[in-house]
Amino acid sequence: MDGNTKSVAMPLSAEELHRMDAWWRAANYLNIGQIYLSANPLLREKLTVDHIKPRLLGHWGTSPGLNLIYVHLNRLIKKYDLDTIYMAGPGHGGPALIANVWLEGSYTEFYPDITRDEAGMLRLFRQFSTPGGVPSHVSVPTPGSIHEGGELGYVLVHAFGAVMDNPALLVAAVVGDGEAETGPLAGSWKSIDFINPTRDGAVLPILHLNGYKISGPTVWARHSDEDLTKFFEGQGYKPYFVEGDVPEKVHQAFASVLETAVLEIREIQSRARSGASHGRPQWPVIVLRTPKGWTGPKIVDGLQIEGTFRAHQVPVSDVLTKPEHLQILDDWLRSYKPEELFDGAGRFRAEFADLAPAGNRRMGSNPNANGGLLTVPLKLRDFENYQFKFEERARQRIGSTSVLGNYLRDIYEDNPHNFRLFCPDETNSNRLGAIFDISDRCLISDILPGDDHVSHDGRVMEVLSEHCCHGWLEGYTLTGRHGLFATYEAFAMIVDSMSMQHGKWLEHAKRVPWRADVPSLNYLLTSTCWRNDHNGFSHQGPGFIDTVIHRKPTVARVYLPADANCLLSVADHCLRSVNYLNLIVIDKQPQLQWLTMDEAKVHCAKGASVWDMYSKQPDEPDVVLACAGDIPTQETIAAAWMLRKHAPGLKVRVVNVVDLMRLSPADRHPHGMTDADFTDIFTQTAPVIFTFHGYPGVIHDLLHGRDAHDRFHVRGYLEEGTTTTPFDMVVLNRISRLHLCLDVLRYVPGALIEHGEIATLCTDMLEEHDRYIRAHFDDLPEIKDWVWSD
Amino acid sequence: MDGNTKSVAMPLSAEELHRMDAWWRAANYLNIGQIYLSANPLLREKLTVDHIKPRLLGHWGTSPGLNLIYVHLNRLIKKYDLDTIYMAGPGHGGPALIANVWLEGSYTEFYPDITRDEAGMLRLFRQFSTPGGVPSHVSVPTPGSIHEGGELGYVLVHAFGAVMDNPALLVAAVVGDGEAETGPLAGSWKSIDFINPTRDGAVLPILHLNGYKISGPTVWARHSDEDLTKFFEGQGYKPYFVEGDVPEKVHQAFASVLETAVLEIREIQSRARSGASHGRPQWPVIVLRTPKGWTGPKIVDGLQIEGTFRAHQVPVSDVLTKPEHLQILDDWLRSYKPEELFDGAGRFRAEFADLAPAGNRRMGSNPNANGGLLTVPLKLRDFENYQFKFEERARQRIGSTSVLGNYLRDIYEDNPHNFRLFCPDETNSNRLGAIFDISDRCLISDILPGDDHVSHDGRVMEVLSEHCCHGWLEGYTLTGRHGLFATYEAFAMIVDSMSMQHGKWLEHAKRVPWRADVPSLNYLLTSTCWRNDHNGFSHQGPGFIDTVIHRKPTVARVYLPADANCLLSVADHCLRSVNYLNLIVIDKQPQLQWLTMDEAKVHCAKGASVWDMYSKQPDEPDVVLACAGDIPTQETIAAAWMLRKHAPGLKVRVVNVVDLMRLSPADRHPHGMTDADFTDIFTQTAPVIFTFHGYPGVIHDLLHGRDAHDRFHVRGYLEEGTTTTPFDMVVLNRISRLHLCLDVLRYVPGALIEHGEIATLCTDMLEEHDRYIRAHFDDLPEIKDWVWSD
Repeated sequence: MDGNTKSVAMPLSAEELHRMDAWWRAANYLNIGQIYLSANPLLREKLTVDHIKPRLLGHWGTSPGLNLIYVHLNRLIKKYDLDTIYMAGPGHGGPALIANVWLEGSYTEFYPDITRDEAGMLRLFRQFSTPGGVPSHVSVPTPGSIHEGGELGYVLVHAFGAVMDNPALLVAAVVGDGEAETGPLAGSWKSIDFINPTRDGAVLPILHLNGYKISGPTVWARHSDEDLTKFFEGQGYKPYFVEGDVPEKVHQAFASVLETAVLEIREIQSRARSGASHGRPQWPVIVLRTPKGWTGPKIVDGLQIEGTFRAHQVPVSDVLTKPEHLQILDDWLRSYKPEELFDGAGRFRAEFADLAPAGNRRMGSNPNANGGLLTVPLKLRDFENYQFKFEERARQRIGSTSVLGNYLRDIYEDNPHNFRLFCPDETNSNRLGAIFDISDRCLISDILPGDDHVSHDGRVMEVLSEHCCHGWLEGYTLTGRHGLFATYEAFAMIVDSMSMQHGKWLEHAKRVPWRADVPSLNYLLTSTCWRNDHNGFSHQGPGFIDTVIHRKPTVARVYLPADANCLLSVADHCLRSVNYLNLIVIDKQPQLQWLTMDEAKVHCAKGASVWDMYSKQPDEPDVVLACAGDIPTQETIAAAWMLRKHAPGLKVRVVNVVDLMRLSPADRHPHGMTDADFTDIFTQTAPVIFTFHGYPGVIHDLLHGRDAHDRFHVRGYLEEGTTTTPFDMVVLNRISRLHLCLDVLRYVPGALIEHGEIATLCTDMLEEHDRYIRAHFDDLPEIKDWVWSD
Repeated sequence: MDGNTKSVAMPLSAEELHRMDAWWRAANYLNIGQIYLSANPLLREKLTVDHIKPRLLGHWGTSPGLNLIYVHLNRLIKKYDLDTIYMAGPGHGGPALIANVWLEGSYTEFYPDITRDEAGMLRLFRQFSTPGGVPSHVSVPTPGSIHEGGELGYVLVHAFGAVMDNPALLVAAVVGDGEAETGPLAGSWKSIDFINPTRDGAVLPILHLNGYKISGPTVWARHSDEDLTKFFEGQGYKPYFVEGDVPEKVHQAFASVLETAVLEIREIQSRARSGASHGRPQWPVIVLRTPKGWTGPKIVDGLQIEGTFRAHQVPVSDVLTKPEHLQILDDWLRSYKPEELFDGAGRFRAEFADLAPAGNRRMGSNPNANGGLLTVPLKLRDFENYQFKFEERARQRIGSTSVLGNYLRDIYEDNPHNFRLFCPDETNSNRLGAIFDISDRCLISDILPGDDHVSHDGRVMEVLSEHCCHGWLEGYTLTGRHGLFATYEAFAMIVDSMSMQHGKWLEHAKRVPWRADVPSLNYLLTSTCWRNDHNGFSHQGPGFIDTVIHRKPTVARVYLPADANCLLSVADHCLRSVNYLNLIVIDKQPQLQWLTMDEAKVHCAKGASVWDMYSKQPDEPDVVLACAGDIPTQETIAAAWMLRKHAPGLKVRVVNVVDLMRLSPADRHPHGMTDADFTDIFTQTAPVIFTFHGYPGVIHDLLHGRDAHDRFHVRGYLEEGTTTTPFDMVVLNRISRLHLCLDVLRYVPGALIEHGEIATLCTDMLEEHDRYIRAHFDDLPEIKDWVWSD
């Protein structure tokens, strides 16, 4: 690279260039200090091994680019009073963001002991990647950050989610060229097809091509600018390129391109907001090609470092043992001329510090990066208004999610800028279609006459990408808004890792005092394993429950409402909550309804309770039939009904668990029941047949530590399935009413002898079912009954 | 659409056109029959409700396009003797593939009772989506398929994996426009950057734009051909477009474009293989725009169906109750003129059936889609040759994965076309770099002088996409080759759902008699939670174990070798196996070595055993210290050592579990121990402190059903972590040697009173550690010891 760039304008005066370069040098210097130094922060004396940390951690390679972008954003934030936050896809460049936030003064406001002087600088260095200090990545303790960048791939979805319904916000989203290889990142460029400039803010993606990952070249760095131009234009972007390794030239070129991009975004927004344009605008994107580890050591031990993968982390190692390496480090640090940058007390000189915007315009202090500060609670009508009033208990069917749809419809109506549903093209399929009375699907492309509820103004976010849905919702909630991600149960596992990472963020944020509470991330899993009888085995997988329960008890919440009224109560609770991962699991098909609204409220408040109305002499039961989940509840109540009819002497208690974490011992989860409560519900000695929606291991785990839990016999999804009938699904996995009756006879002492009749009945019916299934296409008339499901 | 297409050549004679159209009509007809009919398959009489299935399932919308592509591929397979398989991204179009495979005769060869006549046709219809019949998706029982397409997004990665080291194979990969919105699909176009035409086969992607998903428009369908051209060209493809809704015109245009694409692929390959070209060729891609549900009902109840989302599944419903709907179905079926297509006995007329290729060239019979037929076992040298011979037990450290690297290096050498490593740019980081002695990283772009072991001929597959790595390996193994996916432990969760889907495939395949055994899919998770002390919380997540153990016992295998010799033994076992998901978890950092090779072989064969050499009077122990995983083993042995020293009267048995599924009751997993074996190892009554690598719930689940498992006290990863020291990680999660000693004193009756000294010692040391951590950057000299880890 020769420092030539594609943009020739020189917008910076010599003085401005000098000051901006000084900021950049200071940030680079502080970067290196964090990686290496435990003393002598201002290099007052020649470096010795006593000044060096015992363990060198941190990522240098990406940092000079991140620093460059930061100072150039500062210029424009000041010039145009921009409301801007910064997301670093290469979040392992943690020291870069920390350095800039310290330079601008935000850091010291959040952490007063990290003062803006030599002592503070030393603490800044020492705390980095040090036990008890701050993590090596851009993480929760980093002011200005809502994106860690530890697991790569999500910077754009977080950025786009943050700007939805956030018209003033501009997110500068740096995409690493390593990150750009991930599937989720590749799939998130399309987010501009869902951004409406009249009501949404804007994202400025900056693809930072520094050529290498940990050790290999990146895919995009080996494609030409022509390729990249086509790639971006094809997706609706207008790309700008800056390339070089001569700082002054890159400063000028980047300043020019960044300003052009920002002005184009403002122009797009002002035209759209004045009604002068419609449709999908051509949003700018910047491609920045600079060397990996730019300005770092060029050669170490005869090997090129700058511009290669060797600059990825610590570009010169063994400084404790190799004097010549220590000399390279000394030279490298001094190349930034720290004495020019910091005064005698270690304070960043005012002439450079003045480049920072003021107050909340500083990217480290922008409230959008601490979204709880901006959170407005949802306006929620009384959920009892939406209740399903049945005429006869356990006789009428309705799709419970369709009842929830009415509730969500009014949330859309009452919260026109504060709530969105995110869903992979399944809103109708999931029976939530009532919301289309108020809002449409969002798409910023041409709308065709045959389209159903699709418009540019729509705020129902449907895209066939669970990654986009989840990531957008994360960005939306972390900037203080509310939402729900509704998806087919099995395909929630596509975002297992995103859920884990967001859960870790929420967990950590609870321990960072200045982080304000943010709305919970709410999941509605529907089209569940038990009722994917039509789609078959690939659509049957309840494993997302396992992912959520592994998060810390401070954030993990799992609800399995069995009917519409319970679902309403649970949803209301979740939508009012903060800082949780709330997982709600319920199928969408018409299903029997069990509880009145009054009963449902009491039950959901308790989280788990005895359902007297479905029990027989529940006070001193011979057996407890417990259930969690809609189909388990159906089969359990049916089994109780069969037992009442065919084994009238048997005392059967029916227990339903709607809040799964209630099963946990009280010392393991805040929702956990005391042992006394647990005994009240499950008795001390009766056998318990527990029928669970998901994998039985979840219940085994939750029950661990309870006395006498060997009397619990857990049934659940056994990874059996195909395209078949709903009833065959419960038979295959042995949770059918017939299996449960047989289990009761097996585990209640003496029951089999006393109630042999029902054992015969159940066995006969299972054989009959087996004949039904095996008869299938040879003898079709007979199987017209095969939808027999309750 | 007016039927105009961008390609004007007319390669088909009138007669050929007629015959191909007839095949297409026949496939469409059979599609609809599968969805609707339970009788009257040849429409000998007017349709009545008695001919209709009781429940209408299946996806019509995508099917006409899938059928069109099938017959056109047949033409070229015959003309050029192509070795071709078909992958349907929109796998919900199951009836389409089944129809074509039946028409070509393959189906009847696999399923003789589905004869090629009227009776067979009726069974074909009746079995579809019927209990006991075949699933609604392209699935394991579908001949010619190695891609279900239930969970969308993976068709290209499967296709590209299938052609690696498979130079004769051409995969026609149909990408749905819904699927194209997913992250994994968007991220897999780049696969051509890793395909070397000299030694790999080719993928021909066909992006099928039919405009709609379940209910909304697709993103790409609303972009122009110009946009798509740029998008594909930017990524190195040469796009061809076919658009229309007039069958004859589309036939001609598609025939022309498909032949052009196939010839270009052959030209690319022949130039590369003759040495006439190098570098990344411009591979063709086809964009096919046809109406959703093409040739289906145009209008039903006044609403447009063909060309809209309403054609997605069953385009005309309620045929049992609405006579006018039944009439529409009758008209629709007759529009294909079944009497022209099938003879009086229901046989597909020979003049049309002759379009099919012969024998194994038929896509339903191609052995690449039943890859076990092609599998050649790996050449594996004796793994004992690579053993680590220590001079003193438990005193020497080595990176166990670096030992494995030597073994893998020789596998690369001995199996130059039959084995690949897939890894997100971490081969060196994961200490497997020895393989670079034999092969390079693969990249088909310009190679720069500074690149390290990167070449066009490289066969080490590094791409920063876990989705690509996993999907490529799936395609590679399903076509009969062998491989290993090595990745950072936490980021394995990115592919949780892919692992689930592949596990389901393997499970189902075991029950399909004609499916031959395929090599296992092997995972090596390294850079584990316990040793991501430097990267912090986002890199600490052992949840992938949970994903694997939820697969059926027939396929789920989990190994936690504690040292290099155990790792070698386990790896050898996994690489020889078939049909499993083999998960191996071990960290990459230098670690203490516990067993000689002879001991390791015995131990791994047992799966779990008492380690006498680390126990004290193990015959009648007061306590069992059990462990699974490298760091748990280290802490457990250290605790045993401390107890021996400070509580010499205590009898301590050390147990190690390398094959996790051994813990399972024998009736739950084929590796499960009998109760007698279990008692031999864990005793009948002694308290067991079980230290586990992952979440404790995994062990709770596996132990469920064992007698007296309340005496097991499981310790594991508690979702605690940050950037800190290795030792602090085990302290934070309470599995440190000090915690384990304290646990022993707590659970062994009377031990605390008898051995108070060690309790004080441990408590003091934990306090000292706490001071270390809290001292951190304020008092750095003191914490030079903070790497204290064993």
